[in-house]
Amino acid sequence: MQFLKLWLAAPSWIKNYQKSKLSDDVFAGIIGTVLLVPQNLAYAILAGLPPEMGLYATIFPLFIYAWFGTSQTLAVGPVAVASLMTFTSLAGLAVAASPEYVSLAISLCFLSGLMLVIFGVLKLGFLSNFLSQPVLSGFTSGAATLIALSQVKPLLGLTFESNTTINFFFQLFTHIQLLNPYTTGIGLVSLLFLIISKQYFLSIFIKLGFTSKTADWATKLAPLIVLVFTSLWVAVFNSNTSHQVKIVGQLPQGLSQFVLPHSVLTHFDQLWLPALLIALVGFVQSVSVAKALALRRNEEINADKELLALGFSNVASSFTGGYTVMGGFARSAVNFAAGAKTQMAGVIAALLMILILLGLTKWFYFMPQAVLAATIMISISSMVDVETLKKAWSYDKADALALIITFLGVLFWGVQQGILLGVALSLGVMVWRSSRPHMAVVGRVPGTEHYRNLDRFSVETQEGLVALRIDESLYFANASALEEKIWNLLNQYSNTHYVVLIFSAVNAIDATALTTLNKIEFNLRQRHIELWLAEVKGPVMDKLKLTALGQKLQNKVYLSTHLAFLAAKQKLLEKHQPHLYGSFDPAV
Amino acid sequence: MQFLKLWLAAPSWIKNYQKSKLSDDVFAGIIGTVLLVPQNLAYAILAGLPPEMGLYATIFPLFIYAWFGTSQTLAVGPVAVASLMTFTSLAGLAVAASPEYVSLAISLCFLSGLMLVIFGVLKLGFLSNFLSQPVLSGFTSGAATLIALSQVKPLLGLTFESNTTINFFFQLFTHIQLLNPYTTGIGLVSLLFLIISKQYFLSIFIKLGFTSKTADWATKLAPLIVLVFTSLWVAVFNSNTSHQVKIVGQLPQGLSQFVLPHSVLTHFDQLWLPALLIALVGFVQSVSVAKALALRRNEEINADKELLALGFSNVASSFTGGYTVMGGFARSAVNFAAGAKTQMAGVIAALLMILILLGLTKWFYFMPQAVLAATIMISISSMVDVETLKKAWSYDKADALALIITFLGVLFWGVQQGILLGVALSLGVMVWRSSRPHMAVVGRVPGTEHYRNLDRFSVETQEGLVALRIDESLYFANASALEEKIWNLLNQYSNTHYVVLIFSAVNAIDATALTTLNKIEFNLRQRHIELWLAEVKGPVMDKLKLTALGQKLQNKVYLSTHLAFLAAKQKLLEKHQPHLYGSFDPAV
Repeated sequence: MQFLKLWLAAPSWIKNYQKSKLSDDVFAGIIGTVLLVPQNLAYAILAGLPPEMGLYATIFPLFIYAWFGTSQTLAVGPVAVASLMTFTSLAGLAVAASPEYVSLAISLCFLSGLMLVIFGVLKLGFLSNFLSQPVLSGFTSGAATLIALSQVKPLLGLTFESNTTINFFFQLFTHIQLLNPYTTGIGLVSLLFLIISKQYFLSIFIKLGFTSKTADWATKLAPLIVLVFTSLWVAVFNSNTSHQVKIVGQLPQGLSQFVLPHSVLTHFDQLWLPALLIALVGFVQSVSVAKALALRRNEEINADKELLALGFSNVASSFTGGYTVMGGFARSAVNFAAGAKTQMAGVIAALLMILILLGLTKWFYFMPQAVLAATIMISISSMVDVETLKKAWSYDKADALALIITFLGVLFWGVQQGILLGVALSLGVMVWRSSRPHMAVVGRVPGTEHYRNLDRFSVETQEGLVALRIDESLYFANASALEEKIWNLLNQYSNTHYVVLIFSAVNAIDATALTTLNKIEFNLRQRHIELWLAEVKGPVMDKLKLTALGQKLQNKVYLSTHLAFLAAKQKLLEKHQPHLYGSFDPAV
Repeated sequence: MQFLKLWLAAPSWIKNYQKSKLSDDVFAGIIGTVLLVPQNLAYAILAGLPPEMGLYATIFPLFIYAWFGTSQTLAVGPVAVASLMTFTSLAGLAVAASPEYVSLAISLCFLSGLMLVIFGVLKLGFLSNFLSQPVLSGFTSGAATLIALSQVKPLLGLTFESNTTINFFFQLFTHIQLLNPYTTGIGLVSLLFLIISKQYFLSIFIKLGFTSKTADWATKLAPLIVLVFTSLWVAVFNSNTSHQVKIVGQLPQGLSQFVLPHSVLTHFDQLWLPALLIALVGFVQSVSVAKALALRRNEEINADKELLALGFSNVASSFTGGYTVMGGFARSAVNFAAGAKTQMAGVIAALLMILILLGLTKWFYFMPQAVLAATIMISISSMVDVETLKKAWSYDKADALALIITFLGVLFWGVQQGILLGVALSLGVMVWRSSRPHMAVVGRVPGTEHYRNLDRFSVETQEGLVALRIDESLYFANASALEEKIWNLLNQYSNTHYVVLIFSAVNAIDATALTTLNKIEFNLRQRHIELWLAEVKGPVMDKLKLTALGQKLQNKVYLSTHLAFLAAKQKLLEKHQPHLYGSFDPAV
């Protein structure tokens, strides 16, 4: 009930809405809609869907996100990676853009949304930690490269099927003589213009005396200008040529009908894994965009609430004829730069999209698909991330390798396979690292009560005592390493009477590690060696006291390493004392 | 080449073999073979295979393990869990005991062996760390329960198919009136005798004045005695009854022919996952048995070499008509108790098995399958492990829950599904735990240079300085938690000029965490707060120095927390000093 109340209450941005922000939000909403319409159409085509689904997906999800989301400026809508993943997951199941394919895409979107909602209710925001940054970077670069390659066909007006990247290049090579000269011309000229605009417009406009803000907007408007001019060119000349340039064509007018994601029931087995991966990747990207924007304005993002907001947005998208939506980097950047202050900008954008669908869809009729492809290639190019690879390479080769393997996996094995490979790599490295916990035999820094690593400092040791500092929590993945280390140490220090484990960095001991400690204590006792502990943290000691091992170690737990060393010295002296007085002690 | 040399050299137990050990080894070899023949037959039947395959599997694997293995007393052969997993993996692919099924089982064994060899060559012994002890205990108990249930049918002479545990109970209920009275009679009487022998024989025999060793052997021989008597009974009476008791029947005489695991090629897709799981579970169980035995004699087990030894044993088993073999607890315990000193006992057992196959297979003809079922039920009962659950429950509820879920998963979902669920649970808990690293704001223990957790000790703090001790290595799974913690602290301590991160327990920083630290430094600087580090370990500092962050933090890394506190005090004083002299400092 409390849960419901919490969610039915209006978000704080509505309750505290200041009228002064309205003009900014309206401006940002209009700019965002106008600039992003071509991208929405293009991403839907990339996903193998009818272009209008890219527009449907930017209405209800925006309302829903405005209500539930915790970011004031994140823009949700179709995004490149999720579109590509939709296509690669469904290409084998139905013919692209067929009614069956559309139904599958809607169900995929619904499933991703449902999973996000479930994760949100269970507060599993930490799940996004399964993806390390290098793996995510490798994945994104790989996906961006795949998307750019996929746009080569519409750019050149070619049509062929290929199921692997290698096969794609082979097919491209054999089909290249079939390219449509008009499409290729219009596509390449647009591409060239966009590259130039992106690289040089800013400096050219500034040199011409414009303010940097105007120059910035001129650069941002470049794709729209290209689309308008090429659409006009096509409208005038297209019917006269023998090689017709492929255009967006007739879009249905009005909103989509209400649809049910019924393929969830019939194709659950094929859809659950792609849905999970899209949800996971999309969530991580959305949250990282939201966090990056929030930092600039000192706002706060709540990952668990974002899960719910994105989940509900996708469920809404699936019921209203859209497909998977996430928080996109490019679209959010436009929204932010256009001066959006609150989610009111999203609401305005959604209302505007309704107007467009009701009356203006014929404006997109002549848009050449080759030019859409060129705009995607340009906007996707910033997603190929070489910087992270460079940094990782110089800092941590294992991380760099994970990045490269994930990138190659996505490119040559498959999008899903690549991300799964990456997650498995991350986890594998994690288990491998923590299965080799850092441990150090310590000795006393002369004249102090400090104890440091024997291998790094010149310290004093105590004959008969081995003090081992464990620098990690003990649990199933590293418990056996401790056991091994101790036996190796005993081989090295054969005259040992006391083994002190220094638990200064041990925050927890799980059941497996507890069993191992029991075994260690038992076997040390067999060899007449005592096990001591030192610097055990409060919560660890509290739990340990309740166990059989805790009982056995009573009076053998020292507050500091120094006290343990002193005690050992004392006890070893006592053991040897009888000799001093000439008596014979059989226990020695 | 060195690798080959290492492996072609005779193992040390052969090179140093003392003749005095031979009598012990021969005795243990004979006892082991005699006692375990029924179990080998029964496990093969459990795996859905012709019984003789259980005998084939105890010849060449024993020779191979004797050469490559590092345990002196581990006995390899058919084991309960791997037999059950063989059956559940193949039941859907072919009719049990059909030639196709046999071929699949041989290929499964070959694949498991090959995987173990590959893991061994790559020194991936740490992979066994993926299984936590509670998960392994839950899995073993679940598998043992499933095996016990599977023996109810032969025990009562029933035949029906069931694919789930729930369905099994339903079918049992509907078929119970079809039970074979003679089979049920002989089965239940044997079971009762075995239960009594296991519970009371030891104390009865000792009361009768026998030594505890004699009593122990009498108890161990009980199953064999039951089998001899019931076989005789069947031999005399079986042909006269209308309800014939099912017997082992005719076993082929002689060794198996050499076979090739050709189904690997045709059924790789269905076999690789079960093979991997069997290899993983079998390896973990074998090594834990080997380690337990080795500890009693101060011997050493090398996990990576064990991988190779078990791998080669399985490859050998697959080529010589056997099926999956692992180090079994029951069989190793018999070998150990019978006084085996070296792997010579295994060699003797293998030679003896050849003799049995060449001439004595007709001795098993009349063995009633119901009595075999009873012996399996008894020997499996000790595998149901309530002790670990009890301990885990009182020590760590999360571990106990993982155990219970794995147990229920195996029982009601499936053997493979159960173990996968368990591994996923272990890893999930691991990521979840490490995504919430232990961190503590520290202050000075008055009058000392020691700094302790603010929440647990009464310590002095320094206005304007927040000192946060991070008690774990920083990496992708927990980096964002650090970020969040710092923002929360800054909300709490609004008048902060310096944030000191104490890295005394940080052994490594991965690329993701480095990016996060960069972000933290950047955002703190935006707020005019300096980021300092203290107690950074040598290897961490070495890597950090090479990065942009390291450059920015030059002169901001303190050797101890105490020095950082002193420096902050000094700097804060300097900041305020101008006021003392009446001058105006715009920087404050």
